[in-house]
Amino acid sequence: MKLIEGGVCAANGFLANGVHCGIRKNKQKKDLALIFSQKPACAAAVYTINAVKGAPLKVTKNHLQNAMAQAVICNSGNANTCNANGIEIAEEMSHITAKELGISSQDIVVASTGVIGQPLDIEPIANGILALTKGLGKNSTGAAEAIMTTDTKVKEIAVEFNIGGAVCKMGGIAKGSGMIHPNMATMLVFITTDCAISSEMLQKALSGDVNETFNMLSIDGDTSTNDMVTVLANGMAENKEITEEGEDFNVFMKALNTITVHLCRSIAADGEGATKMLECKVSNAGTKQIAKTVAKSVVCSSLLKAAMFGADANWGRVLCAIGYSKADVDVEKIDVAFKSKAGNILVCKNGAGIDFSEEIAKTVLNEDEIEILVDLNSGTESSTAWGCDLTYDYVKINGDYRT
Amino acid sequence: MKLIEGGVCAANGFLANGVHCGIRKNKQKKDLALIFSQKPACAAAVYTINAVKGAPLKVTKNHLQNAMAQAVICNSGNANTCNANGIEIAEEMSHITAKELGISSQDIVVASTGVIGQPLDIEPIANGILALTKGLGKNSTGAAEAIMTTDTKVKEIAVEFNIGGAVCKMGGIAKGSGMIHPNMATMLVFITTDCAISSEMLQKALSGDVNETFNMLSIDGDTSTNDMVTVLANGMAENKEITEEGEDFNVFMKALNTITVHLCRSIAADGEGATKMLECKVSNAGTKQIAKTVAKSVVCSSLLKAAMFGADANWGRVLCAIGYSKADVDVEKIDVAFKSKAGNILVCKNGAGIDFSEEIAKTVLNEDEIEILVDLNSGTESSTAWGCDLTYDYVKINGDYRT
Repeated sequence: MKLIEGGVCAANGFLANGVHCGIRKNKQKKDLALIFSQKPACAAAVYTINAVKGAPLKVTKNHLQNAMAQAVICNSGNANTCNANGIEIAEEMSHITAKELGISSQDIVVASTGVIGQPLDIEPIANGILALTKGLGKNSTGAAEAIMTTDTKVKEIAVEFNIGGAVCKMGGIAKGSGMIHPNMATMLVFITTDCAISSEMLQKALSGDVNETFNMLSIDGDTSTNDMVTVLANGMAENKEITEEGEDFNVFMKALNTITVHLCRSIAADGEGATKMLECKVSNAGTKQIAKTVAKSVVCSSLLKAAMFGADANWGRVLCAIGYSKADVDVEKIDVAFKSKAGNILVCKNGAGIDFSEEIAKTVLNEDEIEILVDLNSGTESSTAWGCDLTYDYVKINGDYRT
Repeated sequence: MKLIEGGVCAANGFLANGVHCGIRKNKQKKDLALIFSQKPACAAAVYTINAVKGAPLKVTKNHLQNAMAQAVICNSGNANTCNANGIEIAEEMSHITAKELGISSQDIVVASTGVIGQPLDIEPIANGILALTKGLGKNSTGAAEAIMTTDTKVKEIAVEFNIGGAVCKMGGIAKGSGMIHPNMATMLVFITTDCAISSEMLQKALSGDVNETFNMLSIDGDTSTNDMVTVLANGMAENKEITEEGEDFNVFMKALNTITVHLCRSIAADGEGATKMLECKVSNAGTKQIAKTVAKSVVCSSLLKAAMFGADANWGRVLCAIGYSKADVDVEKIDVAFKSKAGNILVCKNGAGIDFSEEIAKTVLNEDEIEILVDLNSGTESSTAWGCDLTYDYVKINGDYRT
């Protein structure tokens, strides 16, 4: 597994672009992204479980009934959700994109992110699509920029791997920041690969992976209406198509997991207002589900998140969050440690406090990537969840997001 | 139902006091409270469902096996939780209090609130108990002050009501502020009444009430390890004892609900860092459970809480929180309005945005008590949940709570 450049354009046959079309007031900010595969691709997707679903998700779900797609069109600045004519606008976005690319509307993945319940005008988007297709190239970063909302950093990655002697590539871009507590998917993640894989195995790989990655990520506990993760696989690497479980599928899963874990960590680190990425690693749990429940509960605790912002080794809040998680744990066996590149410090042994140096703890917690290590000492299962600290800036960003 | 003065000392036969004994560093802050009933009282209690339970809760649960109690001893500044000798300390607190009051240790309710996992020394408490009993009187406010942690306001209330011609009184004190997302109870609430009621009916009244009051309250989504609500009923009003459901029990329930709703609202308004009390009223739900789930989900949304801080009428976040609550609702029937003493403004009709004056919305949301009115238009059930806005000060308070 080798990290390479190129993001969603790393894989053979994928082009991308991003432009400012006018949905966002700030002309410096791109707001419309396109990803195109030169060949029709197998497509898999997972969507938000929020009962309020963005119109683009409904349209995409319909388009992906045949598990094939060839392009992704996505705007930022407006979620196209809870609008009277949302479906119409999403269909129109697909229609114009398909026409410009000379493909069928049914092969378009359409997505939106931004404010909920604001009217969305098709005109700037229509003009934007012309510009997007005209400038289409190996511009993954442009596309990654155009799907950002309150994100401060571009999130992209690509890897190279080998399937039966054929060199395959896979890349992804993501947007995160706020309203991030995915269940079935995260805000928006687009992954491309030239690996040949059947659509059934592609969906299986994606659904299995998100349970361990995007579903273990939380910025603020709010599950968005527009979450979506899609993978397009165009087969242009010309490997022997993956059609069943086995060694090749495992390599594919590993490549996918490398992409998704990187994007999870990037989204967590760039959570709204975040100064620190939190990674809770639970080990020696009785069951996988206990490990996951505990890890997620810890990274979701507002109190712990605030303590991490203040570099306060308040491990009582870790225990408290484990306690209300409803996971079946033996409190008196729990050990807690904090770890970062500055060091590692045990703060709780057998569910009770131990003497530790506050000074060392402060040094450990002053880093920008913190591991919270929870050892349940009750089995062999483990799990990881990602989140970020809770800061003044989270409040500032969300106190007046619309205006 | 008449509001009266006197808090937990309003009812006949109840005395209270609060002192600074030295658990908290700041000598201006009281940290030890006592409530005493001159006659043994029926006692009912509900406790946190957090699997990590404070030692005082375990001791109190044991003491209340006979559903009788005569005094409450409570310290702030240290939760006496996740300590090696927590049970021992809680028993010792009970023992010393009982000895000074000339009653049995079994008749003591013991409670603690503050930092988790810090050693707690019995010596200052022992000295404090001497001072407390010496100065025992009609000092409800002293007791209410002594149970505060990051609370900024004393929370107490009392009412007078009539049971079969006998004048009864009931009063309560509470502490809230942070780690408030009760399930079975809230942080700490002590209620006293001179109404004669059997212990079975007292527990029934309390358990029924908290489901609609403290269990519908959230400051930050963190369920504490030390939540407890207790009621002591000493029968000194000499009414005919309430031993079954009926008119008298209904009057008692109404009195209890007046106390608990007031304390809920007070805790919400004084949430850590809060500038606004939020009250989400859900109406016309298909079932009671749907109404409750929706109301609770809305007041728990970090994004909505931050929007309310900024007086931003971002109703999309209300719909989003309803959507991820997993309640079975028809999104296209939902209306949302914001209301305060400055006015009332409809912002969403049938699940979609409507034209509204941002200026009026701002005026409505600039008040310090905001109602979020959610009409599901699908039935006849309703529910209310309480919370507060998310502010810079919440982060400040919790970024460095221990030091």
